[in-house]
Amino acid sequence: MRIVVLAGGIGGARFLRGLKAAEPQADITVVGNTGDDIHLFGLKVCPDLDTVMYTLGEGINEEQGWGRREETWSIREEMGKYGVEPTWFGLGDRDYATHIVRTQMMSAGYGLSAVTEALCARWQPGVRLIPMSDDRVETHVVVDDPDRPGTRKAIHFQEYWVKLRAEPTAHAIVAVGIEEAKPAPGVLAAIAEADVILFPPSNPVVSIGTILGVPGIRDALVEASAPVVGLSPIVGGAPVRGMADKVLEAVGVETSALAVAKHYGPGLLDGWLVDTADAASVPGVEEAGIPCRAVPLMMTDVEATAAMARAALDLAAEVRAEAGA
Amino acid sequence: MRIVVLAGGIGGARFLRGLKAAEPQADITVVGNTGDDIHLFGLKVCPDLDTVMYTLGEGINEEQGWGRREETWSIREEMGKYGVEPTWFGLGDRDYATHIVRTQMMSAGYGLSAVTEALCARWQPGVRLIPMSDDRVETHVVVDDPDRPGTRKAIHFQEYWVKLRAEPTAHAIVAVGIEEAKPAPGVLAAIAEADVILFPPSNPVVSIGTILGVPGIRDALVEASAPVVGLSPIVGGAPVRGMADKVLEAVGVETSALAVAKHYGPGLLDGWLVDTADAASVPGVEEAGIPCRAVPLMMTDVEATAAMARAALDLAAEVRAEAGA
Repeated sequence: MRIVVLAGGIGGARFLRGLKAAEPQADITVVGNTGDDIHLFGLKVCPDLDTVMYTLGEGINEEQGWGRREETWSIREEMGKYGVEPTWFGLGDRDYATHIVRTQMMSAGYGLSAVTEALCARWQPGVRLIPMSDDRVETHVVVDDPDRPGTRKAIHFQEYWVKLRAEPTAHAIVAVGIEEAKPAPGVLAAIAEADVILFPPSNPVVSIGTILGVPGIRDALVEASAPVVGLSPIVGGAPVRGMADKVLEAVGVETSALAVAKHYGPGLLDGWLVDTADAASVPGVEEAGIPCRAVPLMMTDVEATAAMARAALDLAAEVRAEAGA
Repeated sequence: MRIVVLAGGIGGARFLRGLKAAEPQADITVVGNTGDDIHLFGLKVCPDLDTVMYTLGEGINEEQGWGRREETWSIREEMGKYGVEPTWFGLGDRDYATHIVRTQMMSAGYGLSAVTEALCARWQPGVRLIPMSDDRVETHVVVDDPDRPGTRKAIHFQEYWVKLRAEPTAHAIVAVGIEEAKPAPGVLAAIAEADVILFPPSNPVVSIGTILGVPGIRDALVEASAPVVGLSPIVGGAPVRGMADKVLEAVGVETSALAVAKHYGPGLLDGWLVDTADAASVPGVEEAGIPCRAVPLMMTDVEATAAMARAALDLAAEVRAEAGA
């Protein structure tokens, strides 16, 4: 079974671990979000790709969900002593090694997808990990400028998310460079050849939404013969993890499993899973033209996550059978 | 008193510590060798400048003489796991921070001298540290090519020195780029305004020799009103530290205190200190036209090194008095 998964960071990575447990023989291609990539200290940092790579390669810091296990922090300490900004983005020494290797390869002319493949040769994540694009796309968030009342400014997504903890009102989300971005080599082919396409419970705006914004990817998903099944990242009116409500508001979408399903829309989604806590929203989603089931959607451990993945694959099989009938 | 010191790495750094102890009020400008700079993993590494900066800034690993104290080695471990070469050059995590900051500043357009000044703002070495040049100069060593018998190849000085431990015969030393290099801002002025100029017991070929090779620096030293006094790095026919004999051979100079004095020459040197073990060579040096004294030249501790510095300053004062008389 060929499965394509669109993934953000922590949510996507943990879902993939469950999916691999549920379908160890599946041929899984992961299209990773690169909109939250950032250049720090002259190095190219890809938080979402790395979270997927480290998580599936058994190198992740399990407690925090990002970064490396057995990490040391000498460089961060030195940067502080040199007075170099920013200090709010947590890069450990082991993590730095990844960014140094990546940056050096990219300076030598390799594209991000080739570099990601090279890094994965070490990590052996058990999936094919492809960035959504080899072109630079950077998600910026429009917020009020506290220094100039009455005016707004765009800041890097990481500054909004990590430094400001999503506290300022997000007026708009802008993926800078996305209009000119091309899907990375292999992305469109993987989508076209997939048996199932899954949207994990990742952020619908700044993770999945950014991937969908790369010209060509949404169309490929719509035209794909494989069913597209998503899992709601919103449970009981709140994001399971992270601060998705803040960015949903910016794009005018209510923080509910139903609203997110409608935001993706029936043209894109062929199935939607909501948590049992949101069972009441199933009829509304189906009314919108999207087959829907309510199952437990809390990724408490690999077992629970594998059950979620199985439920998504079951719904996909059902949808496909319907279509074939 | 304005003192200019031409310095390589460990020898220069340790001498400077003694000089500062001997003359705490002196205004010391250090012209640092950058010929052994190397780009590793896309980062600009300046071993000699850093050894001076860390040593005088109390950040050096005293036992090894280079690198940082309280160092961690996570990145090196990761590089090994990524299979990235070279693994023979020892860069610790704290040291990496320096190279990352330097590389980022240089990418932003700052010259090496401006970057060095910025790094020194943290380290407060108590001297003004200037690279010999802001232009890229790389010392290469011509050796036999083991893969193609009968032919020779040029390898980076660090590969020869650190990886191969100076074992292959060095047929020639080539400072690539030196003909086009200009002295860094401030170097010529410091030399012209100096009261004393000192050559510490650094490598006469790949440290002091490289600095002297930057067009304009040798002439400035010859024309300077200040006396130029050197300390022999050769004691009893062997280098005190390192493998200076290997590179002396490549330039056709015998490994002796006398031969090194003659190599610099009376046009450049106004005074030369040899170790008491080499007292017998004093007449020969003086016969060559260079005032010479024999004093203990082993930098066993700061006290002993301060005494060496004092002896050099005394000889400079003597020479100056002679000239004035």
